[in-house]
Amino acid sequence: MVTVGIVGVGLVGSELLAQLQATSSKLIKIVALTNSKRMVVSDSYTEISLADWKNKLAGSTTEANISHLVQYLSKSPEHSIIIDCTSSDHIASQYPSWLSAGLSIVTPNKKGFSGSLSLYEQITSLSNNLPGSTPGKGKPLVYHESTVGAGLPILNTLTDLVKTGDKVQKVEGIFSGTLSYIFNNFSTLSANAEKKNFSDIVKVAKELGYTEPDPRDDLNGMDVARKVTICGRLAGLDLDLSTLAVENIVPQELQGVASADEFMSKLPQFDDHFQKLNDAAVQNGEVLRYVGVVDVQGSGSGVKLVRYPGSHPFASLQGSDNIIKFTTERFPNGIIIQGAGAGAAVTAFGIYSDILKIQERVQGF
Amino acid sequence: MVTVGIVGVGLVGSELLAQLQATSSKLIKIVALTNSKRMVVSDSYTEISLADWKNKLAGSTTEANISHLVQYLSKSPEHSIIIDCTSSDHIASQYPSWLSAGLSIVTPNKKGFSGSLSLYEQITSLSNNLPGSTPGKGKPLVYHESTVGAGLPILNTLTDLVKTGDKVQKVEGIFSGTLSYIFNNFSTLSANAEKKNFSDIVKVAKELGYTEPDPRDDLNGMDVARKVTICGRLAGLDLDLSTLAVENIVPQELQGVASADEFMSKLPQFDDHFQKLNDAAVQNGEVLRYVGVVDVQGSGSGVKLVRYPGSHPFASLQGSDNIIKFTTERFPNGIIIQGAGAGAAVTAFGIYSDILKIQERVQGF
Repeated sequence: MVTVGIVGVGLVGSELLAQLQATSSKLIKIVALTNSKRMVVSDSYTEISLADWKNKLAGSTTEANISHLVQYLSKSPEHSIIIDCTSSDHIASQYPSWLSAGLSIVTPNKKGFSGSLSLYEQITSLSNNLPGSTPGKGKPLVYHESTVGAGLPILNTLTDLVKTGDKVQKVEGIFSGTLSYIFNNFSTLSANAEKKNFSDIVKVAKELGYTEPDPRDDLNGMDVARKVTICGRLAGLDLDLSTLAVENIVPQELQGVASADEFMSKLPQFDDHFQKLNDAAVQNGEVLRYVGVVDVQGSGSGVKLVRYPGSHPFASLQGSDNIIKFTTERFPNGIIIQGAGAGAAVTAFGIYSDILKIQERVQGF
Repeated sequence: MVTVGIVGVGLVGSELLAQLQATSSKLIKIVALTNSKRMVVSDSYTEISLADWKNKLAGSTTEANISHLVQYLSKSPEHSIIIDCTSSDHIASQYPSWLSAGLSIVTPNKKGFSGSLSLYEQITSLSNNLPGSTPGKGKPLVYHESTVGAGLPILNTLTDLVKTGDKVQKVEGIFSGTLSYIFNNFSTLSANAEKKNFSDIVKVAKELGYTEPDPRDDLNGMDVARKVTICGRLAGLDLDLSTLAVENIVPQELQGVASADEFMSKLPQFDDHFQKLNDAAVQNGEVLRYVGVVDVQGSGSGVKLVRYPGSHPFASLQGSDNIIKFTTERFPNGIIIQGAGAGAAVTAFGIYSDILKIQERVQGF
């Protein structure tokens, strides 16, 4: 049994609670919840009812206070895990203090692992190197599978390869569901495919809720760059967002326009630009894909628009799937992992799996 | 630190020892080794030199005796793991007694998990449910990732899906590197591909060492059936080899011929039969693939020759890769994992990862 507190109960946090409720796990006990305003902290580490947490939180008169939540968890008689379901930089900056308080961390928040290298190094050196806050409770651990490809087994696999001494040469993938959808629809060799304008595809993606409120936040490559940074660091590279080569595919003229609406209204002016890129690829039997690359031995790490031949697994991707390929000494032809890499259900699945991994490690059963 | 004994030091066992030596892991100590004739058991749980184990074993005058090896490991002051690198039914039947002696088990041997249901149930109920042989040493655990797809994260992923309450609907895959190679070469929609006779492809596969000494041991589907049984049982089905629907693609007339040589010499007589099957598929824009299926909700579990449209990920497979697809409630479009699923390096990688998972679970760090 581990005691668990959740910071952030939006889409992903709520889905995690629903999955825990559906499985009635006896190994995991939720004892604290907070959103940005209110907080519920149980008495004496009793379980917060998973059937009724929404009402409890809505009716709580306790103001959100993460320090109090951390303090409460750290004094639990059981090993405690804090789940950060926000995407906040500020909250990620508190991970070292949470670890020092003896808490394990599970999170889909990319900020702590793709931000400053010094924060990342603090987190990794504190994880697994501290005694538990109480002897016998187990050391604090950090798991963040859902930061890359949601619940797909990307970081687990990469970690296993590295730990067992395989030489990872390259990690290459379509890390963004949004950009997967856009280019799978825009750039195809299928003779039956209807020819669509780039701007129309972005418009539909926005309407379907696949993009950020401002699609430039997808097209600028920064989300992919964070995932590349996370994989690269796990593979032993000191990648840094500020120096990583990132191809921003937002046309330069539109990078500075004030609003998402203005961006969307002007994007059609650049359909020719994207069409020319695509025609050049297709005439060569290739398609365009927006990929992230970790080049462990060379200097090719970055985020870029790349052409792939029709026979390449990236070329036949459909929908909004992620696809990631690891090329290593033991797997010269690569391991490929493909599937939904975004959405509440699959993100919560990754978090839930990580909680169980920590529970098994600190308690052995 | 865990103490480890290895039963079987052929290709896979030797490669595991080489990987351990290359990484000089301080968490794993090899203290016993045996092949079918000789055995090396260290004094007082000291480490057997990884640089020199071959000479030590060749020069050993101690006769192989697995009971003694098990007894030695069970009295270790540390948690002990026994690695079964054989493919023996007889050795797999001893797993319950090893677990009862407090030992964890890691193995690529499929026999214990795909053989009799009662042996399987004994193994799973003893794993994780026994106290360690000495208090504080941790409970005995069983990991067998390498029984399916070698080191590819197939069973880990399936286990995570099941443990977190996802509803697995289907596991479908090309589980045999041999049959992957044969059908990837025989059945393709590529206009450039040279047309080859089925028997010629089997002949080349045999010469390359991809097949069993008698290729009928691949073509009869029993190896795939074992892997389907393992995945099915993990997904909650009581599959049994004796009742599983397995399409043996060895022509009936050749199933009884005495030798592999006679089989190979007569196989060309059936090239027309295979060619007709393939032509019917290709004329329809499809290819033939030999797949294993776990149909969790229906009755379609089995091993069979199936036609897939050219756009299906199984259709564009190359070389001798495995490819496995999980379809679940949370992943309606599936998780696909693809890569080398056979060979000493990738099998040993799966074993090594499993050893580390047990070490982390029983010792928490």
